[in-house]
Amino acid sequence: MGTGGTGGQAGGTGAAPLRIGIAGLGTVGAGLVKLLRGNAAIVGARAGRPVVVTSVAARDRTRDRGIDLDGVTWHDDALALAHDPDVDVVVELIGGAEGIARRLVTEALRAGRPVVTANKALIAVHGAELAALAEQAGVPLMFEAAVAGGIPAIKTVREGLAADRLNRVGGILNGTCNYIMTAMRESGRAFADVLAEAQALGYAEADPSTDVDGIDAAHKLAILAGLAFGRPVAFSSVHVEGIRGIDALDLAFAQTLGYRIKLLGLARRREDGIEARVHPCLVPEKMPIAQVDGVFNAVLVEGAFVGRLMLEGRGAGEGPTATAVAADLIDIARGNAVPVWGRSTDGLTQVEALPRTAFHEEYYLRLQVHDRPGVIADVTAVLRDHGVSLRSMLQHGRAADDSGGADEPSVPLVLVTHRTQESAMMAALARIAALPAVIGEPAMIRIEAG
Amino acid sequence: MGTGGTGGQAGGTGAAPLRIGIAGLGTVGAGLVKLLRGNAAIVGARAGRPVVVTSVAARDRTRDRGIDLDGVTWHDDALALAHDPDVDVVVELIGGAEGIARRLVTEALRAGRPVVTANKALIAVHGAELAALAEQAGVPLMFEAAVAGGIPAIKTVREGLAADRLNRVGGILNGTCNYIMTAMRESGRAFADVLAEAQALGYAEADPSTDVDGIDAAHKLAILAGLAFGRPVAFSSVHVEGIRGIDALDLAFAQTLGYRIKLLGLARRREDGIEARVHPCLVPEKMPIAQVDGVFNAVLVEGAFVGRLMLEGRGAGEGPTATAVAADLIDIARGNAVPVWGRSTDGLTQVEALPRTAFHEEYYLRLQVHDRPGVIADVTAVLRDHGVSLRSMLQHGRAADDSGGADEPSVPLVLVTHRTQESAMMAALARIAALPAVIGEPAMIRIEAG
Repeated sequence: MGTGGTGGQAGGTGAAPLRIGIAGLGTVGAGLVKLLRGNAAIVGARAGRPVVVTSVAARDRTRDRGIDLDGVTWHDDALALAHDPDVDVVVELIGGAEGIARRLVTEALRAGRPVVTANKALIAVHGAELAALAEQAGVPLMFEAAVAGGIPAIKTVREGLAADRLNRVGGILNGTCNYIMTAMRESGRAFADVLAEAQALGYAEADPSTDVDGIDAAHKLAILAGLAFGRPVAFSSVHVEGIRGIDALDLAFAQTLGYRIKLLGLARRREDGIEARVHPCLVPEKMPIAQVDGVFNAVLVEGAFVGRLMLEGRGAGEGPTATAVAADLIDIARGNAVPVWGRSTDGLTQVEALPRTAFHEEYYLRLQVHDRPGVIADVTAVLRDHGVSLRSMLQHGRAADDSGGADEPSVPLVLVTHRTQESAMMAALARIAALPAVIGEPAMIRIEAG
Repeated sequence: MGTGGTGGQAGGTGAAPLRIGIAGLGTVGAGLVKLLRGNAAIVGARAGRPVVVTSVAARDRTRDRGIDLDGVTWHDDALALAHDPDVDVVVELIGGAEGIARRLVTEALRAGRPVVTANKALIAVHGAELAALAEQAGVPLMFEAAVAGGIPAIKTVREGLAADRLNRVGGILNGTCNYIMTAMRESGRAFADVLAEAQALGYAEADPSTDVDGIDAAHKLAILAGLAFGRPVAFSSVHVEGIRGIDALDLAFAQTLGYRIKLLGLARRREDGIEARVHPCLVPEKMPIAQVDGVFNAVLVEGAFVGRLMLEGRGAGEGPTATAVAADLIDIARGNAVPVWGRSTDGLTQVEALPRTAFHEEYYLRLQVHDRPGVIADVTAVLRDHGVSLRSMLQHGRAADDSGGADEPSVPLVLVTHRTQESAMMAALARIAALPAVIGEPAMIRIEAG
């Protein structure tokens, strides 16, 4: 019959342990050791056998990580884990799309060793190649922790919804950006100010670019899109914008218009291809995702049969991420595995996402304009020329302490368009920016109406 | 090494099909046939081999179900599926904890045949016994569709969070009740009125008891609790209250106090045992679950490492439920399986949930009282005598068209208590109900503060 076994039902404490080698003992690595030890009875029962850490590799032997590593083999070279005879599964927690992380995962798979990783960059950039390697070696490559931390987003998309034709996937995939924009909205403070605070609190890195420029969210989106649509999406083709350009003014205007601003990753199946993009969005405040604030993440999935699902939880941190890694280890201990992209890599080619010019959205525009007659007529004439139709307009009166040009006062002008092709919007915006009455670069934020 | 295979990675259209026998061709059964055919390419690729319906069993051969059953073997007796040589997996969609559904699942497992079911009553009531049977036979028994329809709640709790120590699980588990209470709140109409409308729209059954009396939600909660805590919870020990007693007045008062009323299933791990209960709750309107309206379901899980997760989606209907059944079939096709309660049944005993008297909650009380001096003093004296401390009180002025006793006017009096033992609350309420100034039965609704 060949319909499979019972997933280690017969297993127990008498069964041979699954021996883990961990590369990278940062927050997540140390958290994983704590979880596997603190919850050893639960993990052992669920896995059908003990799951034990036998080897680790990290740079600094002296650092106090709050874990006892007595009896655990220490490697200075992470690559040694790929061949350590006491290791059944390699857990890669070093990070980065290239370098040692990539070499370790490649070498472990080549050595026929299952790999669990939390490395979103690696899977997003090299997932196609690594999937083929895993399949050749006949071993699982798992990465639940790479997307949305404690939310089992990968399992949901790749297994829970495996039977459905998924049309959309995405969500709030970066907790740092969500924290910053929530704080900006609540306090009215500027981006740089809130970023500095987030850095002080440990919610943002010293070099925040990966987060605030949208790269981290784009890695996660590329992975989710690949899983949802059953083939890897070329990471370089994902359109990415971060949140540095969001002004406190935009958050306030959005609220006036009944929206919140969220950095969303969105992938969509269209007749002519796949859209995959990360950028700030105006989201109607009644949508559940608009209410997901602070460091929380939310994953949205929409399928032809299942309708719309939302999963909300902690997207990062020691505990949630360690839980995700350990869940993968339990699956491996049970002998359960799923191909990297949900199906055999045989004949599976990477797909390029559609270019930005093909997007078709509603747009929020904010211009700073000289407060003189005819400005609105000029701006709306450009939009008309490019076939962009307006849905609403908001002009705030001039404040007393207004600071515009040296001698001429200026005001913000907010326009909301109907759905239009982004190529038309781009052409119109270039002309609007060149109007004599328009000061600086116009701000453009897409609207995600649901 | 024994760390498992590659989950059917090598599979493809050339591999032997997984042959399905479906018992019960109602909405879900017909939906499953449509899904497996409409998404045959997706399902085949994900499963590593074709998944085909070879046999069905249903009562009425003549009914038009919108599906073509040519070439499919028809059994009048569902039990025949347990031994049909052309069936690899039995899908039980008949329903009910006893009778033919139970006999079919039992017989199929005894015959060494994997079973997928959407039958929450069966798993909630007989899950312990069926888990042992499945383990003896060495075949999977899967039931993702039994809880929260299209939301992969079972996979999330049993696999995605397998490594964590879960402390709470529950949520909005019955879409019919949530629809009725949403409509009551939005329209101010009475329960009976909205129920009749829901029945006309097909959102409620002709006999709505299983839904509105909380039984359906209790079945799902018992299953979730069993998975979260790693051992089956005796269904008969789950405390169940439905929504028949909810008055439009309560929905309005709740809103005034900053709450919504939801029928929640809640299970909690305590030092002295497990709480498992289904009843209406006042939920602070800022909590995400308070915003889940209409027929939508939401599942909440809380773990020591992962923190809090919420999953929201369609809890019923042809498409979502069929998606869940098909996901189980794909797991079986790949050879992936998990023990029924997440661990071996060896030494696993069923646990009784704590009795109602052990609950420890905040309470909302609504009394109809004669509008005379001293009533509040009498009521609060009783609460004080039982050690119940008050947090707030709400008394609405008497309306002009007030209808109280024959000659004496009456008004509603709303009290909100601090957290207290339910045994004390029950004793106090019995005495309050007996006060001469109190008319009818007091309404008591627990508050779920998060």
